[in-house]
Amino acid sequence: MNDVHFKKIALIGIGLIGSSIAHAVKARGLADEVAISTRSPATLKRAGELGLGTSYHDRAVDAVRDADLVIVSVPVGASGAVAAEIAPGLKPGAIVSDVGSTKSSVVAQMAPHMPAEVHFIPGHPVAGTEHSGPDAGFATLFEGRWTILTPLPDADPAAVARLRAFWEAVGSKVEEMDAAHHDKVLAIVSHLPHIIAYNIVGTAEDLETVTESEVIKYSASGFRDFTRLAASDPVMWRDVCLHNKEAILEMLARFSEDLAYLQRAIRWGEGDKLFDLFTRTRAIRRSIIEAGQDTAEPDFGRHAAEQKPA
Amino acid sequence: MNDVHFKKIALIGIGLIGSSIAHAVKARGLADEVAISTRSPATLKRAGELGLGTSYHDRAVDAVRDADLVIVSVPVGASGAVAAEIAPGLKPGAIVSDVGSTKSSVVAQMAPHMPAEVHFIPGHPVAGTEHSGPDAGFATLFEGRWTILTPLPDADPAAVARLRAFWEAVGSKVEEMDAAHHDKVLAIVSHLPHIIAYNIVGTAEDLETVTESEVIKYSASGFRDFTRLAASDPVMWRDVCLHNKEAILEMLARFSEDLAYLQRAIRWGEGDKLFDLFTRTRAIRRSIIEAGQDTAEPDFGRHAAEQKPA
Repeated sequence: MNDVHFKKIALIGIGLIGSSIAHAVKARGLADEVAISTRSPATLKRAGELGLGTSYHDRAVDAVRDADLVIVSVPVGASGAVAAEIAPGLKPGAIVSDVGSTKSSVVAQMAPHMPAEVHFIPGHPVAGTEHSGPDAGFATLFEGRWTILTPLPDADPAAVARLRAFWEAVGSKVEEMDAAHHDKVLAIVSHLPHIIAYNIVGTAEDLETVTESEVIKYSASGFRDFTRLAASDPVMWRDVCLHNKEAILEMLARFSEDLAYLQRAIRWGEGDKLFDLFTRTRAIRRSIIEAGQDTAEPDFGRHAAEQKPA
Repeated sequence: MNDVHFKKIALIGIGLIGSSIAHAVKARGLADEVAISTRSPATLKRAGELGLGTSYHDRAVDAVRDADLVIVSVPVGASGAVAAEIAPGLKPGAIVSDVGSTKSSVVAQMAPHMPAEVHFIPGHPVAGTEHSGPDAGFATLFEGRWTILTPLPDADPAAVARLRAFWEAVGSKVEEMDAAHHDKVLAIVSHLPHIIAYNIVGTAEDLETVTESEVIKYSASGFRDFTRLAASDPVMWRDVCLHNKEAILEMLARFSEDLAYLQRAIRWGEGDKLFDLFTRTRAIRRSIIEAGQDTAEPDFGRHAAEQKPA
């Protein structure tokens, strides 16, 4: 147990991340009240059916009144509008945070709207699944994962510590860095992989010589893993691309350069170059497993592996 | 039960695929004798310790004597040498097949060595994990997966039917197509995904602004899935690249064109184009799940998802 507790938490946006926060807060008793608001009436209704909060509000400004902690979980392109909307309702001393996958853009959009007496501390739980919506959330999503906080230079250390304690209470590990560095890190570990995955699925769909049914039948040989990434929420990912443009374009340029080098090695039959690359990439995999960020289970086998005798 | 049975099966090469065949043959009683040969003495010894066969041979030509079915499971670059080595020992009427991920090259390498009275029928079980070696195999690897046979135009239909029945007996579904078409299909569903995965892992490793430890910590956000592919056997994948060059270069060219289009849309802030692509890729994901080639479980969550209450 820990002593993190808020009288009232407001969740603006109740998709995969918002609803997972709601589950985690409830499961661990971190708040007396959880006020929920989201733009879509159908989603708000569904959140009520799922019992995710203690009150439900059509207008975000109504949800944030008297809240000690406000967490905005919307596609990053909507951050500015939400900040403008909630600003008049924010309680002095409240902590306002978000969960967006890009941080410089969120700061630029939200900070100008924040009243002086509010603690605005951007955040990003690096966790998720390929599913979206209020039904997709679960209480343990953040366990063992990292949440990155990107406090502004003038942030109040006590407020940052309190937000950190909140994320730790829902099972997350917490790291702090500046927004620009966050955006570079995420561009390579998350944004580029998703863009590449979307791209290859698009390429496969457009082929004339290989049918879509063939792509589906034989997808277990590698393609399948890309389709999972490429099934993620399109609005969220459109916004990520538009709001972390510089870092993404830099990573894409490097990726394409490296791919041209690899392509040339294939064309000229340079087996040594291929072997060198294919060998050194194994080491990172081992490190990820050692760091507890994935398991060593032979996941390609999926069902088959589950049936593997002990 | 089915009536597929061979007096003697020879397995040349006993890595992930060879050892999975051995387990499956044993589990289902498909042969009286299973003779195993592989180039590495240590691997052959290990195969013996695992009890994968009934006899073990330093020389492949000794293993294939009197065998009714010979399955060559070696990196595709070694196919020609193995074919030359086993040719003198092959029994008239024997079926010789392989499991290589490229087929035109295997045909070109092996066919010239095959005695006229032998049935050479190339094959490719589209199944695997990111692990390799004789310890990685398991009996159910092929269940629900597809095996592609690429018989030559003059193949004996009875021999093809017998090989098909063998793969069905180990749980696989079977499809036939010509070698050139196989190579195009696999280039997009398997070879390109692996090359892209190796490439992005290499790009990430070479960054100056983001440390390797950051890449590892935050890998759950997408990168992780690529590292699994990029942990596959480097010799096997070097050989695939060298032996399916034309089809791979064609797919790489298309992929790069599409990526340039996407990159331009990001640079110019064309959200509609991004949204369109990110939406249509979801449909393929659904089809793959409907076809039983993956599950709908939210795999990004990994451990966390396993703890999700029902």
